[in-house]
Amino acid sequence: MMKFRDCWALRLEKVERILAEALPGRHEEPKLLHEAMRYSTLEGGKRLRALLAMAACEAVGGDLKKTGGFAAAVEMVHAYSLIHDDLPCMDDDDMRRGKPTNHRVFGEAVAVLAGDGLLTQAFLELARMPEKYGISAETTVRVVEELAQAIGSLGMVGGQVVDILSEGKEISGETLEYIHSHKTGALFTAALRGGALLGGCSERQLELLTIYGENFGLAFQITDDILDEVGDSSQTGKAVGSDREAGKQTYPHLYGLERSRELARECVQACLDALEEFPAQAWFLRELAKFVLIRES
Amino acid sequence: MMKFRDCWALRLEKVERILAEALPGRHEEPKLLHEAMRYSTLEGGKRLRALLAMAACEAVGGDLKKTGGFAAAVEMVHAYSLIHDDLPCMDDDDMRRGKPTNHRVFGEAVAVLAGDGLLTQAFLELARMPEKYGISAETTVRVVEELAQAIGSLGMVGGQVVDILSEGKEISGETLEYIHSHKTGALFTAALRGGALLGGCSERQLELLTIYGENFGLAFQITDDILDEVGDSSQTGKAVGSDREAGKQTYPHLYGLERSRELARECVQACLDALEEFPAQAWFLRELAKFVLIRES
Repeated sequence: MMKFRDCWALRLEKVERILAEALPGRHEEPKLLHEAMRYSTLEGGKRLRALLAMAACEAVGGDLKKTGGFAAAVEMVHAYSLIHDDLPCMDDDDMRRGKPTNHRVFGEAVAVLAGDGLLTQAFLELARMPEKYGISAETTVRVVEELAQAIGSLGMVGGQVVDILSEGKEISGETLEYIHSHKTGALFTAALRGGALLGGCSERQLELLTIYGENFGLAFQITDDILDEVGDSSQTGKAVGSDREAGKQTYPHLYGLERSRELARECVQACLDALEEFPAQAWFLRELAKFVLIRES
Repeated sequence: MMKFRDCWALRLEKVERILAEALPGRHEEPKLLHEAMRYSTLEGGKRLRALLAMAACEAVGGDLKKTGGFAAAVEMVHAYSLIHDDLPCMDDDDMRRGKPTNHRVFGEAVAVLAGDGLLTQAFLELARMPEKYGISAETTVRVVEELAQAIGSLGMVGGQVVDILSEGKEISGETLEYIHSHKTGALFTAALRGGALLGGCSERQLELLTIYGENFGLAFQITDDILDEVGDSSQTGKAVGSDREAGKQTYPHLYGLERSRELARECVQACLDALEEFPAQAWFLRELAKFVLIRES
């Protein structure tokens, strides 16, 4: 079995290539818009959502190649959400992944529209799955529905609203979990479910991957908060304590560092438990869950 | 034949009902977000895009009832585009349809996210067409593709970017036409094409309706510019000359009022010409084209 890191690197390369091809080129009009869309989507990020989609497809015995369009779509959605989150009227961030945020480079108006363009392009890429990846129309519609539901007002966008409205306030652990399960968890889970659907999964597998996704998202968010407190800013790409300073509620603040680390470990264990019935092909999903605990960025 | 205005009123009512049902309710969390989404989508507007979709379906002999989800989706897309267009970093408008703009009521952050939520909800509504409206998965995928292409970075969003970048500059008639054909025309055309596809149209009909759509969009934009110059602000809901003052290039400014009126008439004639091969059922489309010339808001 190829080592996890090598396999990751290979898959990452594939995702970058698919994304670069799926986005309109820099020379297509309006050039500034397409430059802005590419700036925030290409050459950056761990591609966790694309990797989860691919790994879920693999875990249910599907053909990895079928996930190309969907993997690109979830990364475009992720990029759009970051651009809008970073806007002055939202988190007002200047840096992202170690480089200036979209609106700092292209201005606020173009940044809003680059986000809009990426969200739309994600659905366009899904609609092209039958033609480009041989996916059936039925599965395509199902995947569009899964993604739209996960990232809409009852999902990711809803989580972002509650996050913004909670800024500077003392919030309960329940609200914090609502924010993260919606803002971050929903897209992770949709990536897994979409990938599994493209791989021809059973309903039972879909349920188990949903449990994996929810726990993966939570573990990811807790470790994000921990990294914000104690991480190396040269690795995370943002200043230490920036969430706390922005008045954001975090797990270490609410539960302390040690209990937060324990919570993250419990979530990762729940991920591994959810995969127990899966065959050896689920190895990448297993490694991804374990990776969350040791990540440095 | 039922008179145009009566039929319009009936269809309008139907669109309002479908939209009110398709959007998450005011009492669903996050309530403020859903209130914001509903505020800018319900009880307002002429519903031209929904009416075009319905009329195109009717014109090709299709069943009007099949267009429900799609009609709601195009109106959600329209509402999202207005919310984002009105933002301080874009056109910075305080009033829309005679009431305060979304960000004036809900704040900028929620306004951006309400727009994002509406765009996503539009695609969710399309994905539900098989289940809710008995549309085949193949047609659903085709309609998702049509809409995403029309409103993305090579369509509506692209038009908005060029519009923003042109503000306060002298631009050519060619650029002005680019802006409008993308910013306004693309969604009109997609509404027509989607409606026709749902009605089971032929490729020839699709082509003709595209010509209708392009000319309809142009006529609409020219009369919009004329109304901005000479309209009754109690009808248009915005101050006379507000586009001009915002440094926007307009048709009357570029060609004069008389030539602009003539251009609009020529476009409407082109709409009617495109419908020549269509049967009597295309009557509503014909009336809609003629309406553009006499509208007061």
